[in-house]
Amino acid sequence: MGDVKMALDTKILVYTQDKPETYAALIERAGYTSVRFASTPEEAQSKLDGTEIIIAWKFPLRLLERPEAKRVKWIQSLGAGVDDLVHSDSIGDEVVITRIVDHFGPAMSEYVFGQLLYLYQDAARIRAAQRQKRWDPFVSDLLQGKTIGVAGLGSIGKEVIRKARAFDMTVHGLSYSGKAAHLVDRHFGPDEWIPFVKGLDILVLILPLTEQTRHVVNREVLQAMKPDACLVNIGRGHLIAEDELIEVLESGHLRAAILDVFQEEPLPKTNPLWELPNVYITPHMSGPSTQERIGKYILENLNRYHRGEPLLGLVNRQAGY
Amino acid sequence: MGDVKMALDTKILVYTQDKPETYAALIERAGYTSVRFASTPEEAQSKLDGTEIIIAWKFPLRLLERPEAKRVKWIQSLGAGVDDLVHSDSIGDEVVITRIVDHFGPAMSEYVFGQLLYLYQDAARIRAAQRQKRWDPFVSDLLQGKTIGVAGLGSIGKEVIRKARAFDMTVHGLSYSGKAAHLVDRHFGPDEWIPFVKGLDILVLILPLTEQTRHVVNREVLQAMKPDACLVNIGRGHLIAEDELIEVLESGHLRAAILDVFQEEPLPKTNPLWELPNVYITPHMSGPSTQERIGKYILENLNRYHRGEPLLGLVNRQAGY
Repeated sequence: MGDVKMALDTKILVYTQDKPETYAALIERAGYTSVRFASTPEEAQSKLDGTEIIIAWKFPLRLLERPEAKRVKWIQSLGAGVDDLVHSDSIGDEVVITRIVDHFGPAMSEYVFGQLLYLYQDAARIRAAQRQKRWDPFVSDLLQGKTIGVAGLGSIGKEVIRKARAFDMTVHGLSYSGKAAHLVDRHFGPDEWIPFVKGLDILVLILPLTEQTRHVVNREVLQAMKPDACLVNIGRGHLIAEDELIEVLESGHLRAAILDVFQEEPLPKTNPLWELPNVYITPHMSGPSTQERIGKYILENLNRYHRGEPLLGLVNRQAGY
Repeated sequence: MGDVKMALDTKILVYTQDKPETYAALIERAGYTSVRFASTPEEAQSKLDGTEIIIAWKFPLRLLERPEAKRVKWIQSLGAGVDDLVHSDSIGDEVVITRIVDHFGPAMSEYVFGQLLYLYQDAARIRAAQRQKRWDPFVSDLLQGKTIGVAGLGSIGKEVIRKARAFDMTVHGLSYSGKAAHLVDRHFGPDEWIPFVKGLDILVLILPLTEQTRHVVNREVLQAMKPDACLVNIGRGHLIAEDELIEVLESGHLRAAILDVFQEEPLPKTNPLWELPNVYITPHMSGPSTQERIGKYILENLNRYHRGEPLLGLVNRQAGY
């Protein structure tokens, strides 16, 4: 991207179902003069013509095959996961894709520890006792001394590890690239899922979704986990073979599954996960940032594009993230 | 204590309402041959004669005025707070009191962060949505960037500080001795409660109860806190003027009060705190340890006493803790 420069009137389209106008206003205040926004596929199509930059979350990618999209050079995702983009046949090879990186670690690691402490302290029991004005002391379980396994050692995994250290946990890690292996007490590679999960009290999935990681947590891996282990997925729904997870949970294996992402989102009301007693469901919210914080990141990247500087969060489409 | 040695048949009385026999068995297994236990005042009185060492939680102190108690030399509390012991007129000046220290930090700091994350992530909303199978994403609040004030910088306060650092919080501290002041970004002394609390998003009370700290968190201090600040008490109920706290909370000031200790415990069913919407009540359970862990500490101290070595957790009765 080093040689690409951008005029201030370059056409920018912001697309997200939730308040795209907020980002658009922010970008306009920074001096960009040709900013449009849309929150439905129909609206996006009507405003697509001549667009060079798409800033979007869950953009209707088939629109990129239309003639109005022929000038699109850069797609900035509003999230960290870009599996939908890298696997789309609708995006030409020459289109640059960027994602948001080094940004979700604090929020997602707070989510992980909030959920784990909820479970280990038995917050549900505590709150029920208060509703009944019942004085019911009990010895709750501690994170201290537990072994947590972090699958995916990017910026989010590193934040989880950092907090796990403050809770005096043993930390194991699995990564495909081997990077950041020095941060964990024991590192495992992609062929070592079974030995990796065998030793864990808690398994946290933060991997990107690639051909290698799709359904990597299958029945065999789940059965290899300790019967009272806890599974946390803040990566992508398709990291787990969801049907097999449901069967394993229904059999009474695993203490809990804390799930923020699912194969289909929103999670259909008919999905049995909603009602399983040892499942804690959150609606893909572990990594949300305020629009203000994401806006700053987007603006920084637009300014880099404008000045012809390297972009943040450049996606390697071969690697898949 | 350096010159006191103890025979293996020295009379030891274990007193606690909850399973004193567990500690007694542990101590007997270590070779001590004259161990008795009791769980009611009547039982304690019947087994008191000749006792040299009392290992107890909430011992009926008036029994110490009886002739059967004249050989008592050492009282080992099973907890960290010993305000009942240091203020008792029933305990002779020559009796040594010890408490459990450097032991509750991990559990109590896990409690603090579990409760805070419950509140900031709005776990109640998340759980209600799951019960209704409702996909309801929202941007939850983060601990990152918040300012936490720790009143009491002993071993428990230090653990809270350590975890607060991992959550990228700003840390202020207040202590009476000034020790550990270097661990916080800003330190306040006992005459600086108002400026201390003014700058905080979260105030955590971990002070011992002394004449100086009784009702130190009164209406004036509470009103000086930010309207959306959160109060956490894991120290002693009487650190707070409870009636004034109730009035302040009823007026809508403060985001929440997370209370583990109360002026009267168990908290009477008639106390309005049970039902205030911004109050989170737990039954004095932030610092419980398993009997196994406390047992190890007790045994270490008994062995030190037996060998004539300095005891752990020696209480300074003048200082009050």
